[in-house]
Amino acid sequence: MNSPASALVGIDWGTTNRRAWLLAPDGTCAAEISDDQGVIAARGRFEASLGELLARLPGLAPDTPVVMSGMVGSAMGWREVPYVDAGGPLEALGHQLVTVDAPSLGRHCAIVPGCRWRSQDRVDVMRGEETQLLGAVALGVRDGWFVLPGTHSKWAEVRDGRLVSFQTFMTGELYALLSTQGTLAAASRDPIASPAAFEAGVAAARDTALSNALFSTRARVVGGDMPAAHAASFLSGVLMGAEWHDRARVWGDHPPELVHAIGSPSLAEGHATAAALMRRRLHILDPREVHLAALRFFASHIRQALA
Amino acid sequence: MNSPASALVGIDWGTTNRRAWLLAPDGTCAAEISDDQGVIAARGRFEASLGELLARLPGLAPDTPVVMSGMVGSAMGWREVPYVDAGGPLEALGHQLVTVDAPSLGRHCAIVPGCRWRSQDRVDVMRGEETQLLGAVALGVRDGWFVLPGTHSKWAEVRDGRLVSFQTFMTGELYALLSTQGTLAAASRDPIASPAAFEAGVAAARDTALSNALFSTRARVVGGDMPAAHAASFLSGVLMGAEWHDRARVWGDHPPELVHAIGSPSLAEGHATAAALMRRRLHILDPREVHLAALRFFASHIRQALA
Repeated sequence: MNSPASALVGIDWGTTNRRAWLLAPDGTCAAEISDDQGVIAARGRFEASLGELLARLPGLAPDTPVVMSGMVGSAMGWREVPYVDAGGPLEALGHQLVTVDAPSLGRHCAIVPGCRWRSQDRVDVMRGEETQLLGAVALGVRDGWFVLPGTHSKWAEVRDGRLVSFQTFMTGELYALLSTQGTLAAASRDPIASPAAFEAGVAAARDTALSNALFSTRARVVGGDMPAAHAASFLSGVLMGAEWHDRARVWGDHPPELVHAIGSPSLAEGHATAAALMRRRLHILDPREVHLAALRFFASHIRQALA
Repeated sequence: MNSPASALVGIDWGTTNRRAWLLAPDGTCAAEISDDQGVIAARGRFEASLGELLARLPGLAPDTPVVMSGMVGSAMGWREVPYVDAGGPLEALGHQLVTVDAPSLGRHCAIVPGCRWRSQDRVDVMRGEETQLLGAVALGVRDGWFVLPGTHSKWAEVRDGRLVSFQTFMTGELYALLSTQGTLAAASRDPIASPAAFEAGVAAARDTALSNALFSTRARVVGGDMPAAHAASFLSGVLMGAEWHDRARVWGDHPPELVHAIGSPSLAEGHATAAALMRRRLHILDPREVHLAALRFFASHIRQALA
């Protein structure tokens, strides 16, 4: 048996969770596991924590390299990996991997650097999403606007495989905070998903500051214009709508016909509705397929580099 | 002694605190007390709670009426008083007071109704600020744009003593949430007040969704563009800046030279800085003086009504 039984281990190592894929030599997914050992849980013992994860991957060959992305490369992670400035080709990440010492593991272990975008007086950062965007490029989606919904929703513009710019919206985090505490949570009772309230929320986020549109969740309930059960859907619409109206402002008279979304169906669902309201089409890419494509890219790159 | 020793008790009865003023027959403030018996603490025993407050007011005559404003008139208050729709003269509040039954107190007790503003698909509400705005009108400030900073910052347009429109911004509540928990609080360490960071925050809120500008607090820190100690000032600037940029959009080519602020010096300070950055002047009205002016108006109105 001369050919390796596995080509690469890829790990999306986030703040609270992590997910690992074992890539077979033919590029398919040979094994996949996830757990709650995010960087908070693994702090101070990353090498041991990775060892435990690898031990649970069936069919892993002894010399298969490991590529990690996400918060594992942040100041709170295994090693703080400097950001790469946006503007260059996403495929350049292949030779920007940063090796970490893991003597007990006896294999090459590396972290994908996050990206930083600067423009005049603006700054933005990502860790993990660059790997997803690289995966989209590897799948042939080399141009266009991307939305990666989540706790910190990212919007990115990619041109000819280059990450031109990106912006982060605290959509998921604000929803989690505001739907569980404070004035807006108090205005919500016995929530029922309401597509109409979601749409009204998207509309309410147009042409006004988000801090004003958010309050209208409460104003509509106490003013008698919306049942308390619809407040959560309205709030969700306001937050996602703020992203789309912001993009519409950036796009001006030349909006893209199509926006690519990399997210689970449940996360992408709200964006699909918002896209339809904004008369745009949403092209949903499966985040697992995208990640596997990035791992295939890294696997071939590392094979060349180590050859 | 035929003339009453007191003209009116005015109470600003909020969610967590309340403040009471005893107005002398000559319109001056004869006594002033505050406590933490807001509507949450007083729930289910408002009459008794008011009795305890009145017993602590020195020189209160037995028949002096009581006028209450704020959340005491909300669904969680003593009695839910229907909103009055904006558009009419603020002085009409004088004959829109709603009497509450308080047999044990042996005096006239009334609540000032809150206001509701509707415009196309927008709705907003206030309870308490209408009394402040009435006070400003009573002091002769009958025209212009007002900002009333706080947990729920209000912006109001008053024309010839009429409340034309108003909008609420969740500035104080968002600051309290985001500076104590979540990603932005984690990016903040050993805060030092930084006027430069506040100004940068005001600028960062321009031309972008607030959920994006908020994240830039973190992006600047982890991207190496701002010390963690300045994150709180930057966050404050972003939130107040969002209000001002929103107003600038509403004002278009005809911004007012002057904006009236009704707020304590500490609350108005940030707005004074933001106003200067937006090349507007801020005219700060003392909230206590404004409230006393409203109480003098109510006192004369009730005297006429009861005559």
